[in-house]
Amino acid sequence: MPVNLNPPLPDQLFPVAGLSLGVAAANIKKPGRKDLLVMTLREGGRAAGVFTQNRFCAAPVVVSRAHLGTGRGIRGLLVNTGNANAGTGEEGLAHARRTCRDLAALLGCDETQVLPFSTGVIMEPLPVERVSAGLPAAVADLGEDNWFNAAQAIMTTDTVPKAASRRIELNGRTVTVTGIAKGSGMIHPDMATMLGFIATDAAIAQPLLDATLRHAVGRSFNRVTVDGDTSTNDACILLATGAADLPEIVDPHSPEFLAVQAAVTAVATRLAQAIVRDGEGATKFITIAVEGGKDEGECGKVAYAIAHSPLVKTAFFASDPNLGRILAAIGYAGIADLEVERIRLYLGDVLVAEKGGRAAGYREADGQRVMKQEEITVRVALDRGTASTTVWTCDFSYDYVKINAEYRS
Amino acid sequence: MPVNLNPPLPDQLFPVAGLSLGVAAANIKKPGRKDLLVMTLREGGRAAGVFTQNRFCAAPVVVSRAHLGTGRGIRGLLVNTGNANAGTGEEGLAHARRTCRDLAALLGCDETQVLPFSTGVIMEPLPVERVSAGLPAAVADLGEDNWFNAAQAIMTTDTVPKAASRRIELNGRTVTVTGIAKGSGMIHPDMATMLGFIATDAAIAQPLLDATLRHAVGRSFNRVTVDGDTSTNDACILLATGAADLPEIVDPHSPEFLAVQAAVTAVATRLAQAIVRDGEGATKFITIAVEGGKDEGECGKVAYAIAHSPLVKTAFFASDPNLGRILAAIGYAGIADLEVERIRLYLGDVLVAEKGGRAAGYREADGQRVMKQEEITVRVALDRGTASTTVWTCDFSYDYVKINAEYRS
Repeated sequence: MPVNLNPPLPDQLFPVAGLSLGVAAANIKKPGRKDLLVMTLREGGRAAGVFTQNRFCAAPVVVSRAHLGTGRGIRGLLVNTGNANAGTGEEGLAHARRTCRDLAALLGCDETQVLPFSTGVIMEPLPVERVSAGLPAAVADLGEDNWFNAAQAIMTTDTVPKAASRRIELNGRTVTVTGIAKGSGMIHPDMATMLGFIATDAAIAQPLLDATLRHAVGRSFNRVTVDGDTSTNDACILLATGAADLPEIVDPHSPEFLAVQAAVTAVATRLAQAIVRDGEGATKFITIAVEGGKDEGECGKVAYAIAHSPLVKTAFFASDPNLGRILAAIGYAGIADLEVERIRLYLGDVLVAEKGGRAAGYREADGQRVMKQEEITVRVALDRGTASTTVWTCDFSYDYVKINAEYRS
Repeated sequence: MPVNLNPPLPDQLFPVAGLSLGVAAANIKKPGRKDLLVMTLREGGRAAGVFTQNRFCAAPVVVSRAHLGTGRGIRGLLVNTGNANAGTGEEGLAHARRTCRDLAALLGCDETQVLPFSTGVIMEPLPVERVSAGLPAAVADLGEDNWFNAAQAIMTTDTVPKAASRRIELNGRTVTVTGIAKGSGMIHPDMATMLGFIATDAAIAQPLLDATLRHAVGRSFNRVTVDGDTSTNDACILLATGAADLPEIVDPHSPEFLAVQAAVTAVATRLAQAIVRDGEGATKFITIAVEGGKDEGECGKVAYAIAHSPLVKTAFFASDPNLGRILAAIGYAGIADLEVERIRLYLGDVLVAEKGGRAAGYREADGQRVMKQEEITVRVALDRGTASTTVWTCDFSYDYVKINAEYRS
């Protein structure tokens, strides 16, 4: 059961002019389910991408990076579920290029103007004939008002489709930002992948588009963790169609740029949090806020040490205000000159630890009350600077082990 | 159920002349169980110690470090279970010093010649009166032939006492190395601690004793991981009594030094592996051997990325030869210039992956056969250098979550 996560309402996913989406059931792994998504971007639109840092990156990641790198305008994207085309060597690269070529032929563009994405079982050959055979149906389905179906088509073990949308006013015109994502946490028999696709009808110069994506991902997808594992296929793409009939944004200090960047970040954050809320076996949504650090880097170390600790995560599952596990995680986060006597630790609004031990006024019943909630905030005040960061994660339950231990059928 | 781990046989734990051990039931947490250990070292003996790197280190760690740092000869050690005296602030330090003072009074030495160790529940005040009240009984129990009882007295959630012993011949004389340890993996409601105490009757100059301990720990306790969490109380102590009536070892290149160092390392390795075999919920003992790295550091990164991945560990629990999860862990281990096409991955003797994908001759049945065993070796050949390292870990089972999620009663 996802934690406080409802499916998006289709009529609240605002179309992005200049960006069409079409889905098809291509029988890639299981018959009869939507498993193929095609997106098309109008001519003159721009694309930016960030990809997994895993050295074992999948074939479609290699090809998407290369195609984005040509600087030719991207016109099409295709996403298949059911097979990640990862750990597939040279043959996998040929398969990924083949799907680009086939979509390019349907769209009348060059194959380097197409970006491929895959998620699903790894180390199995991509059933490329089935992917390609499904493309005409997906293209026939193309429409700007198709975001909900697109969110469904990229689901793997996600239990809820993930989409978010924002509208802002810029100089009297409406600008739309809409995005979809699929979940993280790696799953049997495959390694699930975090994929995000966000589009806006604003016109944004390429360097600013790249910066906007980095900004948004740094505050959203890069701030969530389910189990600390990084997939071979993770990718997030930002598309700007320029169809909103506003001047191109070229000034990184302009209010227009800041407004669009904030809207993209808001959509990305909502998508990233949805992934955690739908994490494998999750029963709690946990916000870890670290403040008073010397820099963001050390705040992140502390936040991730807590977020990745199996002991902390099982204590959250048990609604156990186990302060010692959290303090121990802070202690081994890797800050060599950390003065533990200065740290204050809060569960929700309750000060639970300070001066290297339990807070004087802390009563376990107060910590217990916070831990029983479905949404928990852990706040760590380091008292050594002004930097801060926030990370979102979920707990670690029996179901996580069950989902990940069940043998491939 | 521990993995292939039987209790030590008391008559195979050879006494170390000059080192006596005594235990008592001090009712620190539960009545009627041995929970207090005293060790005494003959005058002129030497001690070396390594301690947790956790910034939230417990009061006894602070005191032991300080007492070792005085350079005065250590004469006594005391270990209590049931309470870790961690996260206890200034009061905890006073309590730890008080126990040293009380044991020193019984032994007729200075309090700075006593090292205190604690393991058990954290953030609760040490019941120092009960510890001190138990000391006379433990001192009355002192004997050189008491290693088995000592191993039992330091257990917390360990299911099997952990001890090991070696005898070597040096210039016609017998030298003994015997040690005990208690387990890692952190447990409800406390954070379990890894403690190791190893003694030899060889005479070793202080710098060489320190070097021997670092050498041994680097190849044993620092190469095992249950859940990646580091306790506030971890410590390993090496004692050299000098009672074997052999000249003091002062030359780090002498065969005597190398022989003693090897024996200490062998005992430490056996103890460290016993901790993993008795890891919380463990059903498999996993050896991760990484070879062909540029240096040991990068081999360690790869080994620990595999050993810490919840996805890999749940796959081991399920006997699932899930190559993708292992390859993905290698990929995110943090080696920026890793060429995945050069890596060869073996499960046991079976080559399962090479050239960035599944090995041509690999049949899943072969991988499955290896994964069903209780002892599994994962071998990663990086093909970029000559360095290597080995790490031991266990799998991640329902019982791990159960043990760590059960609320404190």
